[in-house]
Amino acid sequence: MLAIGDELLSGRTKDKNIGHLAEVMTLAGIDLKEVRIVGDDPHMIADTLNTLRRTYDLVFTSGGIGPTHDDITAEAVAAAFGLPVVDHPEAVARLEAHYRQRGMEFTTARRRMARTPEGAGLIDNPVSVAPGFRIDNVFVMAGVPAVFQAMLAGLSAALPAGDPLVSRAIACRFGEGDIGDALAAIAREHPKVVIGSYPKFDGSRYSTEIVIRSRDEAAIDAAAAAVEAMLQAVDQRRASA
Amino acid sequence: MLAIGDELLSGRTKDKNIGHLAEVMTLAGIDLKEVRIVGDDPHMIADTLNTLRRTYDLVFTSGGIGPTHDDITAEAVAAAFGLPVVDHPEAVARLEAHYRQRGMEFTTARRRMARTPEGAGLIDNPVSVAPGFRIDNVFVMAGVPAVFQAMLAGLSAALPAGDPLVSRAIACRFGEGDIGDALAAIAREHPKVVIGSYPKFDGSRYSTEIVIRSRDEAAIDAAAAAVEAMLQAVDQRRASA
Repeated sequence: MLAIGDELLSGRTKDKNIGHLAEVMTLAGIDLKEVRIVGDDPHMIADTLNTLRRTYDLVFTSGGIGPTHDDITAEAVAAAFGLPVVDHPEAVARLEAHYRQRGMEFTTARRRMARTPEGAGLIDNPVSVAPGFRIDNVFVMAGVPAVFQAMLAGLSAALPAGDPLVSRAIACRFGEGDIGDALAAIAREHPKVVIGSYPKFDGSRYSTEIVIRSRDEAAIDAAAAAVEAMLQAVDQRRASA
Repeated sequence: MLAIGDELLSGRTKDKNIGHLAEVMTLAGIDLKEVRIVGDDPHMIADTLNTLRRTYDLVFTSGGIGPTHDDITAEAVAAAFGLPVVDHPEAVARLEAHYRQRGMEFTTARRRMARTPEGAGLIDNPVSVAPGFRIDNVFVMAGVPAVFQAMLAGLSAALPAGDPLVSRAIACRFGEGDIGDALAAIAREHPKVVIGSYPKFDGSRYSTEIVIRSRDEAAIDAAAAAVEAMLQAVDQRRASA
């Protein structure tokens, strides 16, 4: 994923799209491998996009497709592909109808939202009409979270069906330091699962959430049983200490 | 910045450190230029870190410095620098004293939190003792937000003093489409400022926040006056329509 916008790098806006895309991809069985955040710099956007689209099967972008001068994503994506920017006829038609219906002027600024690289397909925007677009393996979407989410929801049919990753969480009232050695041994003995360990700090004590992930549910059952037995052993050792 | 962790890419954990670092850097007058998020893959971490530390003056990382088997940041950072991993004597001493005082066992897992690349300096952790570390222009910090924030707060003296960026926000009840053309003209006439335009969508209507940024306060005043005059003109045109 490529999140675009000076406002993300200045801290003015806290990104909400990365975590959402991550959740949706996980549910779809698609592994999100890398995220980059860059500012409103056309060369930086184009270079980063070229790296990502050549490295990964799919790339999703957020931000920079609105009507103002700082919305430069369409131009930057077109430059990355070496394509001209055009007013997409279907996008113009949708926007024109939308503003006519509302009695609003279809300004030059609003017409900017119809720009796509030549040959791009549109991504529907059920929230506020102005579409995203797809070109090759790159999906270009809005930065406003409600719109990003609606666009992504509409894409599910266009995405390849992955084998969903199953995950199981086990709460643990001990800190990572109490269980780390034993957990490492379990991870070595169960190579078909990935065991993650996530510390929580409530201000005075650490606890841990242990998460077991795999595409093989039997492997999760086996690893989960090993973790539960380990936690019970730690508990008993403490009780008898 | 480099944020590290499978949990960020699966959506289980929503990152809170990127936005915080962005705010702190902006206040310090340091421009955050790029953020990358990668999973718990040692080669990916090392390659990404090598790219970032050669491209930028400073690099901050979050995540992967705890006591469990999936905490591999220290090894990956050492590999990036071509350095061995050592038990940092001062880090061992701090952790040993901490656990002795609390009557807790200093397990092998907990000792993992003392590992740093050879020659690294420590970053204090006033929250839960286990330190981060600095090597060259790379600052390696915890992923738990309370700890990341405390570590970063302690670093301010170590960071170069930048010329703070001043920003001024102007609320605008029109959508971007109503003001985009005029705003683009103002941006062209005021090259010493960066004008950002951030759409807000309340579920039925768009409004816009216009933000003017510069290191030159007089330039901000001039651009802000132009924006205010433009908004007033739009208002009057609407009232008379």
